Amino acid sequence: MKNDANVAIEIVKAPTSKIDSVDFENLSFGHIFTDHMMVCDYENGAWKRPKIVPYGPITLEPAAKVFHYGQAVFEGMKAYKDKDDKIWMFRPLENFKRINKSSSRMAIPEIPEEYFMPALEELVKLEKDWIKKGFGNSLYIRPFVIATEAGVSASPSKNYKFMIICSPAKSYYTGEVRVQFSERFSRAADGGVGSAKAAGNYGAQFYPTGLANAEGFQQIIWTDASTHEFLEEAGTMNIFFRINDTLITAPTNDRILDGVTRKSIIKMAEENNINVEVRKVAVKEIIEAANNGTLKEIFGTGTAAVINPIAGFGYQGKKYELPKLTDSYASFLKDALMKIQYNLAEDKFDWRYLVE
Amino acid sequence: MKNDANVAIEIVKAPTSKIDSVDFENLSFGHIFTDHMMVCDYENGAWKRPKIVPYGPITLEPAAKVFHYGQAVFEGMKAYKDKDDKIWMFRPLENFKRINKSSSRMAIPEIPEEYFMPALEELVKLEKDWIKKGFGNSLYIRPFVIATEAGVSASPSKNYKFMIICSPAKSYYTGEVRVQFSERFSRAADGGVGSAKAAGNYGAQFYPTGLANAEGFQQIIWTDASTHEFLEEAGTMNIFFRINDTLITAPTNDRILDGVTRKSIIKMAEENNINVEVRKVAVKEIIEAANNGTLKEIFGTGTAAVINPIAGFGYQGKKYELPKLTDSYASFLKDALMKIQYNLAEDKFDWRYLVE
Ligand SMILES: Cc1ncc(COP(=O)(O)O)c(C=O)c1O
Ligand SMILES: Cc1ncc(COP(=O)(O)O)c(C=O)c1O
Repeated sequence: MKNDANVAIEIVKAPTSKIDSVDFENLSFGHIFTDHMMVCDYENGAWKRPKIVPYGPITLEPAAKVFHYGQAVFEGMKAYKDKDDKIWMFRPLENFKRINKSSSRMAIPEIPEEYFMPALEELVKLEKDWIKKGFGNSLYIRPFVIATEAGVSASPSKNYKFMIICSPAKSYYTGEVRVQFSERFSRAADGGVGSAKAAGNYGAQFYPTGLANAEGFQQIIWTDASTHEFLEEAGTMNIFFRINDTLITAPTNDRILDGVTRKSIIKMAEENNINVEVRKVAVKEIIEAANNGTLKEIFGTGTAAVINPIAGFGYQGKKYELPKLTDSYASFLKDALMKIQYNLAEDKFDWRYLVE
Repeated sequence: MKNDANVAIEIVKAPTSKIDSVDFENLSFGHIFTDHMMVCDYENGAWKRPKIVPYGPITLEPAAKVFHYGQAVFEGMKAYKDKDDKIWMFRPLENFKRINKSSSRMAIPEIPEEYFMPALEELVKLEKDWIKKGFGNSLYIRPFVIATEAGVSASPSKNYKFMIICSPAKSYYTGEVRVQFSERFSRAADGGVGSAKAAGNYGAQFYPTGLANAEGFQQIIWTDASTHEFLEEAGTMNIFFRINDTLITAPTNDRILDGVTRKSIIKMAEENNINVEVRKVAVKEIIEAANNGTLKEIFGTGTAAVINPIAGFGYQGKKYELPKLTDSYASFLKDALMKIQYNLAEDKFDWRYLVE
């Protein structure tokens, strides 16, 4: 790839900030955006110099391929502020690698590391006042790439826009979460794009999730599309099951997103002598464990929620409640992982990334 | 649904036309757009009055859900001009019904018929000079709906834009088309969105199609994701196989688009005493038929191409060539169907739709 490498990021500052109009105590996830955004265009076979500009609308042809063919990928990551006002991100290179893996599957040109990382860091530094101190507060960062060429023929776009926008966040989910095991609908096909953070994977879940909502479940745990016998992942979370004192989670494959939180939790559990099995999880086994009382916990892992404990689940018209534990792995691991993210604990695995 | 029903379409005409700058003899498919477009917004739980305005860029928040979650559907249809300057469409109500079926699967509010049809017809009438006479010339019409609400949380948008844009067309494919039977990648999951014209289904095919292109195939014929044993459809075409004198095509299901051309061709073949079997098509059976000389034809059907004869195919590293017939079903049926579309033959099934 040919690029204008090693060029400093151009920054156009917003004349005023809207930060004072934001109620940081009552943020609903992903609806307020900061003062700036990063824009980097791909044209004539190369990524152009990234620019940071005031956050605002973008203008596209109605024939832009993203509208017609969903050629788009995204990432989700967070920045945290510690007591000394230092800003940290969590394993950002994993997100950088993953957006390029997603892009590659969606026939989108990969972004060079020397563009992605400085663009990200400059933007986060510029928005540092939007990152509030305090356990649970963060800046949610959304890098994404969209196909911008105007053309209604189904072939890869020649032009793209890579952008980063930021939204101040507290925690993603509120209230108890109950999930439905999918019996009929599916999220991804073998040989499809399920392991990519491709835009279309998410819109495709809205309708079945709506049906689940109507039955009192906040989320779906997707099963494999061929047999619906194995539990895979939720809409935006990987899933762990605790049977007795063993944590079980499905191995990643081309239907399941390789979550950064998932792999960090596996490591931390092992580090804390919790037995972890990465293997196929049969619906049947979980129902049996629920019935005989050995199913202790289910929880989801993901950047937005960190860890989301599941209060109950539904399958074949029956509802199952999980016990309320005082010593859950979910709360132990969530706390331990967040302490690393917020620079409140030792970082044995070198996961924290200082933005300076 | 609450709507401003029975309101005339508002039309804002373009001050000048770019039609004189267009070389109608050398159109590449889907790159030139006409002078106007239709825009209809969904806000506060209702579709607003459709408007026709000069074709031009649209402005969206970078957080618009279409960019992040691929919540978008589209249609493809055509208008034809006969020797008396009358304008015809082909079974447009089928496309109207299908966009709503797609929308429903993608959690997008359905468009009322009393908005879709007048908006479509007014736009086509306004662009009538862009429809050139002559067999093969047409106006390709692209209705689509995109999610416009700004928000990076994975849930259905509150706001949408339904638009129609038009592009003058000759024929979609040029040159001989060879296809590869898919062995590893897939287009759609059981219980997924394959039977919807959801944007993300198309972007997801670009990468595997690129790999096929590199091996000398223009298109992929997708097989079922679970076993790869059955042939389903191509990227934007349903597929027919002729063994001896029988036409075989896969039944539609939740992985396969219910093509308007496909069902019209089935009817026309039957009408012409061609034996048609709608049933699962095993890869094995097609390979056997190719080897023993009973496989006479493969062709794709779709609005853009009408019928696209396939010259050969590849499977498991082997290449197969199809015989060149002088009396192919593909050319007979294509000609017969196009004569109906262009008002050159009797319209027994009442498929033609006069725009007046
Ligand atoms: C489908 C899916 N699974 C799992 C996850 C969790 O991944 P991570 O821990 O990297 O945020 C996400 C969110 O990013 C996701 O979209
Ligand atoms: C996936 C797919 N299959 C088949 C078709 C053919 O459908 P139709 O004949 O209605 O154009 C299309 C194009 O619309 C398509 O996108």
